[in-house]
Amino acid sequence: MSKSGSEANYPIGVFDSGIGGLTVVRALMQELPQENILYFGDTARVPYGVKSADTIAQYALQIAEFLLERRVKLLIVACNTMAAVATRAIRDLSPVSVLDVIEVGAEVAVRNTRNQRIGVVGTIATIGSHAYDQAIHRHAAKTVIHSRACPLFVPLVEEGWLDHPVTQLTAQEYLTPLLAQDIDTLVLGCTHYPLLQPLLQRVVGDKVQLVDSARAIALQASAQLQRLGLLNSTEQAATRRFYVTDVPQRFQAVGERFLGQALGEINVVKW
Amino acid sequence: MSKSGSEANYPIGVFDSGIGGLTVVRALMQELPQENILYFGDTARVPYGVKSADTIAQYALQIAEFLLERRVKLLIVACNTMAAVATRAIRDLSPVSVLDVIEVGAEVAVRNTRNQRIGVVGTIATIGSHAYDQAIHRHAAKTVIHSRACPLFVPLVEEGWLDHPVTQLTAQEYLTPLLAQDIDTLVLGCTHYPLLQPLLQRVVGDKVQLVDSARAIALQASAQLQRLGLLNSTEQAATRRFYVTDVPQRFQAVGERFLGQALGEINVVKW
Repeated sequence: MSKSGSEANYPIGVFDSGIGGLTVVRALMQELPQENILYFGDTARVPYGVKSADTIAQYALQIAEFLLERRVKLLIVACNTMAAVATRAIRDLSPVSVLDVIEVGAEVAVRNTRNQRIGVVGTIATIGSHAYDQAIHRHAAKTVIHSRACPLFVPLVEEGWLDHPVTQLTAQEYLTPLLAQDIDTLVLGCTHYPLLQPLLQRVVGDKVQLVDSARAIALQASAQLQRLGLLNSTEQAATRRFYVTDVPQRFQAVGERFLGQALGEINVVKW
Repeated sequence: MSKSGSEANYPIGVFDSGIGGLTVVRALMQELPQENILYFGDTARVPYGVKSADTIAQYALQIAEFLLERRVKLLIVACNTMAAVATRAIRDLSPVSVLDVIEVGAEVAVRNTRNQRIGVVGTIATIGSHAYDQAIHRHAAKTVIHSRACPLFVPLVEEGWLDHPVTQLTAQEYLTPLLAQDIDTLVLGCTHYPLLQPLLQRVVGDKVQLVDSARAIALQASAQLQRLGLLNSTEQAATRRFYVTDVPQRFQAVGERFLGQALGEINVVKW
């Protein structure tokens, strides 16, 4: 079933507006430890969540081209904001398969819900795009969706206030209206949010299940590579290479919080 | 005293990493209503506060060049983060006078303090640069300075939570260590912070004076133009032109919160 050895050895390309996508890399490393990974984080231009759709799409295509030039065998759009507004354009451009966090998150949410009432939280751009609504309704047209932009969650995570009274109060403010709508499933529609999972679970209570798409997308990547005969079967240790457009203040500390281990070598791309 | 009419008619160039610098434009419009203004906000790449010093300087020079090509008679670096790391480079580049918010804020703080204990709050990049410490010590070498990065204040302002329990709790968390140091003056070292002034005044109490550099820089611009014989004395209504690199989500609403009135025509520069 396996294709030419060389193509299976190509890395998986993962990209994000910043470092949040490292939660996806972390899940991939657990699920597919033998795979090489190229990660691109647009740390000079982060955050995308408040930018216009046009600008987000322009940046997303620039990054996809960068990774495709480096011969990846699979592209993963780890950033919900880019997935929300640019996945179609990226698919049009890409000769290799493209997986995106929104499609995966929507699938898992539809599978989980019992009362067909799903909540979605994300950045202003993600929520404004209604991309989750569309993806969920493609699978289950009658699902009721309540969504809310939570622009303070990203800076709270980057400040490291993962279990802080301010974060608790902010989460209550954002989520109370969703809980009043009797949702039983809440999609964490931003790669930063899994770091808030314990706190958010406390705020929403036991009856609401949180959907973290990082792990789900790693499982889907595994299935897709198997289908394509592109799983890496070499014995060599896998390499992970990190490209960023800036090395921001606090980068190492914040990056390691997301990745769960030291980052290793960082390559800076100046655009 | 006045130079060639044409030069006095040139606009004042004001620039910022985003829309926070509109608080400076607002102060200029009050102080110098007859002056034409060109404003540049790098809304595609905002925020600068967490980027590396190199990247901030590169962007700052690009914007200064853009405004100088459009023949401004005075440059105002409204962004504390850019002022902190790039003022010298901008002065080297610019044939016209350059005013920056940090120099002005430091002067006012030194004039205000009675116990020579000054607090400074700003972005991670501004505080990490120690630019306020250096500017204050140039005027008063023995001043004791306590500073603190407050990265959540900008997103709280942009969320519009100007008088919200979350903002109150965040301010207490950030400012309590500074208050414990017996400061009598607190410099608001970011153009976003003046919008939090009533709440911050409550948190710090009556004995601490807040320094808002927007009004101070407008007064200094007036004095500098007078010195140079460049005050605009024409009878024509002043024009204000706004350049941005992106029209982000919520731009009009947030922009008007800063400017205190409708923004009018916006010109988008795609970099």
